[in-house]
Amino acid sequence: MSLFTLDVDISFGHCDAAGIVYYPNYFRWMDRCFHSFLKARHGGHAALCQRLGARGLGLISADARFRSPGLDGEVLRMEMMLGEWGRKSLRVDYRGTVEGRLVIEGEEVRGVFVEADGRIRAGDVAPLREVIGG
Amino acid sequence: MSLFTLDVDISFGHCDAAGIVYYPNYFRWMDRCFHSFLKARHGGHAALCQRLGARGLGLISADARFRSPGLDGEVLRMEMMLGEWGRKSLRVDYRGTVEGRLVIEGEEVRGVFVEADGRIRAGDVAPLREVIGG
Amino acid sequence: MSLFTLDVDISFGHCDAAGIVYYPNYFRWMDRCFHSFLKARHGGHAALCQRLGARGLGLISADARFRSPGLDGEVLRMEMMLGEWGRKSLRVDYRGTVEGRLVIEGEEVRGVFVEADGRIRAGDVAPLREVIGG
Amino acid sequence: MSLFTLDVDISFGHCDAAGIVYYPNYFRWMDRCFHSFLKARHGGHAALCQRLGARGLGLISADARFRSPGLDGEVLRMEMMLGEWGRKSLRVDYRGTVEGRLVIEGEEVRGVFVEADGRIRAGDVAPLREVIGG
Repeated sequence: MSLFTLDVDISFGHCDAAGIVYYPNYFRWMDRCFHSFLKARHGGHAALCQRLGARGLGLISADARFRSPGLDGEVLRMEMMLGEWGRKSLRVDYRGTVEGRLVIEGEEVRGVFVEADGRIRAGDVAPLREVIGG
Repeated sequence: MSLFTLDVDISFGHCDAAGIVYYPNYFRWMDRCFHSFLKARHGGHAALCQRLGARGLGLISADARFRSPGLDGEVLRMEMMLGEWGRKSLRVDYRGTVEGRLVIEGEEVRGVFVEADGRIRAGDVAPLREVIGG
Repeated sequence: MSLFTLDVDISFGHCDAAGIVYYPNYFRWMDRCFHSFLKARHGGHAALCQRLGARGLGLISADARFRSPGLDGEVLRMEMMLGEWGRKSLRVDYRGTVEGRLVIEGEEVRGVFVEADGRIRAGDVAPLREVIGG
Repeated sequence: MSLFTLDVDISFGHCDAAGIVYYPNYFRWMDRCFHSFLKARHGGHAALCQRLGARGLGLISADARFRSPGLDGEVLRMEMMLGEWGRKSLRVDYRGTVEGRLVIEGEEVRGVFVEADGRIRAGDVAPLREVIGG
């Protein structure tokens, strides 16, 4: 069940010389979907970080499978689902479709990065889970 | 009078280390606004080029003045106006605001690029003007 | 053993509001590394595609683990290794370091995309393997 | 006379569906050239800002004329020259060529942005001029 949905208008500037979406853009849109979710539901990334005493809800890893090409002029519907919670990580799942046709499936694993002793490290995600649930 | 309007959700990934929109993104949004206009009104860039026998409605020059910073989470309203038509160029004017606050003013000068004798050159814009008016 | 190495100067514009590299850029650099390899060794992507009768050496999937943050002003050394060959795919492995510190590990799975009966599909990679070896 | 030069390898991912450099990238490269100059000569943007008590050496305006298309695989040589100093601004001029062929000419007008009374405004550029000369 999708937690949040973002429609992306695929434009000329997102496409490469082959006339299809240049693939790093899909990661930008996964990230944008996550941030739009935070803004719509939890006051946005900056406010949430302040509340959690965190520097950022940053990336530990990311991956994607490109199922069919996205084209200029199409509307990509990105659906976001909460995946598995670890002790220091949260997996977020994405599914992007154009009029029902599967274009991309991907995952982001994110941590709650905190500063301690001048170093940045992934902290406990329990406080984040309390906020966003799942 | 505005010919077309595009709302852009400013997201985390558009911002630089100073926490404000990284300026080349404004040019991406001006370009996106133009392409969204073509899609909404004239079948899109590819179809229009085919109709005009053109390779692209490309850039001759572009400029922008940055009046106030755009921030993560804000909605930038980009308004597009047709500026002056030359014999081989069209000026398109843009004005970007956030809740009425002026963020950016810019211009694109575009040509109708055609291929002739193996070279790309700016062709007559009269056929484009017939299509989009102004 | 690394097949190709690309040094990337991390600049202000690659970094996000947290002052570290915005993660989709790592995928852009993996892709750039692959294309620089093709240019340096095999005449470039366009010439190689022509030789193989292909539309592109495109992506089937991609993933990355972010081991430590990349910072403005650092030089990221991207090393590229050929991974496993399938019948219709090639895995390319990447490892990015800054002065020996591991920043990113990633993989791209690429196919040789050909057009047949008006559809794009992944073709046999054997002809590509003959060219680039491994 | 050029103050600083940056060579940019134009790659597949910089190009649009027309197979030429997507124009906002030229602004990214102008910005990168300026930041590379600061890093090579003056300790980098962050250190220089700290020294000047500034938030950033940000943009007031930018413009470019696109003289010929840049193509995948080409090396764009960006030359940077100091233009005119105002009281609260500095113009930086750029000229990008590929093997002597003019590709782009552009300008950035930058200010020394400082924070005062919770607002960001362009401050006096005299202290910057003392550092970088010209």
